[in-house]
Amino acid sequence: MAKAVLTISSKNYSSWSLRGWLLCRMAGLDFEEEVVGPDDSASRAELLLLSPSFLVPRLQHEGAIVWDTLAIAEYLAELDPKKGILPEERVKRAHCRAVSGEMHSGFYNLRSALPMNLKARFEGFKIWSGAKPDIERILEIWRDCLKTYGGPFLFGNAPTLADAMYAPVCTRFRTYDVALEEATAAYSETILSWAPMLEWTEAALAEPEEIEELDVEF
Amino acid sequence: MAKAVLTISSKNYSSWSLRGWLLCRMAGLDFEEEVVGPDDSASRAELLLLSPSFLVPRLQHEGAIVWDTLAIAEYLAELDPKKGILPEERVKRAHCRAVSGEMHSGFYNLRSALPMNLKARFEGFKIWSGAKPDIERILEIWRDCLKTYGGPFLFGNAPTLADAMYAPVCTRFRTYDVALEEATAAYSETILSWAPMLEWTEAALAEPEEIEELDVEF
Repeated sequence: MAKAVLTISSKNYSSWSLRGWLLCRMAGLDFEEEVVGPDDSASRAELLLLSPSFLVPRLQHEGAIVWDTLAIAEYLAELDPKKGILPEERVKRAHCRAVSGEMHSGFYNLRSALPMNLKARFEGFKIWSGAKPDIERILEIWRDCLKTYGGPFLFGNAPTLADAMYAPVCTRFRTYDVALEEATAAYSETILSWAPMLEWTEAALAEPEEIEELDVEF
Repeated sequence: MAKAVLTISSKNYSSWSLRGWLLCRMAGLDFEEEVVGPDDSASRAELLLLSPSFLVPRLQHEGAIVWDTLAIAEYLAELDPKKGILPEERVKRAHCRAVSGEMHSGFYNLRSALPMNLKARFEGFKIWSGAKPDIERILEIWRDCLKTYGGPFLFGNAPTLADAMYAPVCTRFRTYDVALEEATAAYSETILSWAPMLEWTEAALAEPEEIEELDVEF
């Protein structure tokens, strides 16, 4: 049987690629990465927020072609529910999907004003007022989950879909010097020091800077 | 046991409310509607695309509070998989989730330039060039699904999550006089004449026009 293939774009800039990759790791999937270069027009359009929708990441696995991060998550969760991509308990699982869905369809201002860029640090970055309600809502979600389930991850002691969805936000808060209070800072640190995140970050930092002409990264 | 409650906003303007409501109908759920009025600030912010994310529709059912349309869909699909919200076959189910995810996270230009408005008809409406790639991609998805699964719905002879996701798009194509060719026109007609759509539309047309000052509806 052919090995699974996950198509992604830039590890430094593509937050959707990061989410899909984390999910494959959480699922324990044996997969190869196929990296679409910055010269690929579909990839460029996505990074520039010019694409109608997101066709990366894309997972090919045993005859299935799955794109869209949430579709990949549900696909992987069905393959082996014991891997914990979704919480086992019905009400908690619904909650996990709800906050993951919010990240998937919302926070457009945050995504455009504070694009993921693992290599960069902007101390004292002035946050556009349009992005502030997004940041407030995200922190509200985190506080609520951490309080309800006790941390260190959003839904308790192991990572779920929700952590994969918000992981790029943790990197943005670091990149753009967003002030966090104790609980949310601890959560962000949990994610940033999580083994697969360290591995991805190392690869991102080693990525050649071929797309410096992008002034609106994603 | 308390009856399920689905919180929605305007039936004329809120495309997310329509999607959530269609899913509850498809699931055969016994539910009450709770309508958040246009004077509700959260509702206004959402209709004006000013909210960080979407908190309507929201389903309360047997101790679970589920918001976000895809989270509601997955919740309902688990309650009774036989209702067909998701296709039974693995590869087809993955495809259905992928195109549903595209609608959920993408097509921002379409959503802002051609807001849902069931009461209105704009003949010869001039479509902003920024929204055209969105329309092209949506029609490409429809053509591919109709050809692969034989119609009349996107995934064959019964409605699925994907049809609920694209139903508001069918109403927009009618409202803004978007030209469709034979296959996509037939699909749009299937959706617009589908019994729950007729019921929703009738209620939308009867809705008092309290929010005429909204110049960017959703």
